Amino acid sequence: MLSNRHVHLKEEDVAALFGEAGLTFNRYLSGNNGPWASNEFVTLKGPKGSIEHVRVLGPCRGYNQAEVLQADCYKLGIKAPVRNSGHHDGAAELELIGPCGALTIHSAIIAHRHIHVGKELLEETGWVPGETFVKVHVGGIRGLVFENVAIVKGGKGMMMHVDVEEGNAAGIKNGDKLEIIL
Amino acid sequence: MLSNRHVHLKEEDVAALFGEAGLTFNRYLSGNNGPWASNEFVTLKGPKGSIEHVRVLGPCRGYNQAEVLQADCYKLGIKAPVRNSGHHDGAAELELIGPCGALTIHSAIIAHRHIHVGKELLEETGWVPGETFVKVHVGGIRGLVFENVAIVKGGKGMMMHVDVEEGNAAGIKNGDKLEIIL
Repeated sequence: MLSNRHVHLKEEDVAALFGEAGLTFNRYLSGNNGPWASNEFVTLKGPKGSIEHVRVLGPCRGYNQAEVLQADCYKLGIKAPVRNSGHHDGAAELELIGPCGALTIHSAIIAHRHIHVGKELLEETGWVPGETFVKVHVGGIRGLVFENVAIVKGGKGMMMHVDVEEGNAAGIKNGDKLEIIL
Repeated sequence: MLSNRHVHLKEEDVAALFGEAGLTFNRYLSGNNGPWASNEFVTLKGPKGSIEHVRVLGPCRGYNQAEVLQADCYKLGIKAPVRNSGHHDGAAELELIGPCGALTIHSAIIAHRHIHVGKELLEETGWVPGETFVKVHVGGIRGLVFENVAIVKGGKGMMMHVDVEEGNAAGIKNGDKLEIIL
């Protein structure tokens, strides 16, 4: 799955941005459950520039987090590090602006490319979430091998997540089948 | 070198977009000669959307060409193929809008990643421009191996060209040293 820039919020910070109505469900990102796109958007504001119309994903998490593209960092004037979700050491400061107010977070990151692996498959492979890294081969005219792909738990089977710059660089789109190189 | 979206023009089409003043020199892209950034910009207009402030590069070439990002294609509503410069089979149609007029081209492409290799090094390696392809390894947290990297002639020594989506996906910036895998 290719992810564009997006935002995760803590339950208690939603009202500051969107008022009492909170986040409203738009659609599941994949299948019939799991993470979903809300109908709510924020503007990201950094020291150099802003990016409008950035979608908030649900459900809420235990932390606020903006996942941005490297190109966004240049535009915003921030240095977001490449990190796994929820890992915010050295993460960048960014202001989120909603229709009802603003919020400064210290957790803007570029998502580390990863593969969600279901429980059964983790047992079968012996892969350890957070410790195992694999390579993934992509064929075609923009063919490449992604190295340093983190294994994380979640979902069923396997689903690789890259951001749109990574996906576009490899010439892939949602639903493409890729090859893991061990 | 990381290339953002840009435009090349035929000498005889410059006036239609920019009037008699033509293209004016801003700076060399690299070193003290070769391709240069002009002070002139166009808007790219596709069936779905437009992208403003896209720079025209000099000197003029024997063909018009827009080099866009995959992300731009979604925004513009075009399907630009990955092609080497000057190869426009299946290239997309796009309207260029300048301050003095507009021009429709049939040569919007996504640039095929490539390495410019100087004459002496071509002789030394035996690489044949247009026929030889190599792999290039990038280290670091976004490490990857670019496959299918075209060897083209030009310049001195070696200079790899990728677009900004490829560069950002690999976590590289202008001037980084990369490793060719034979």
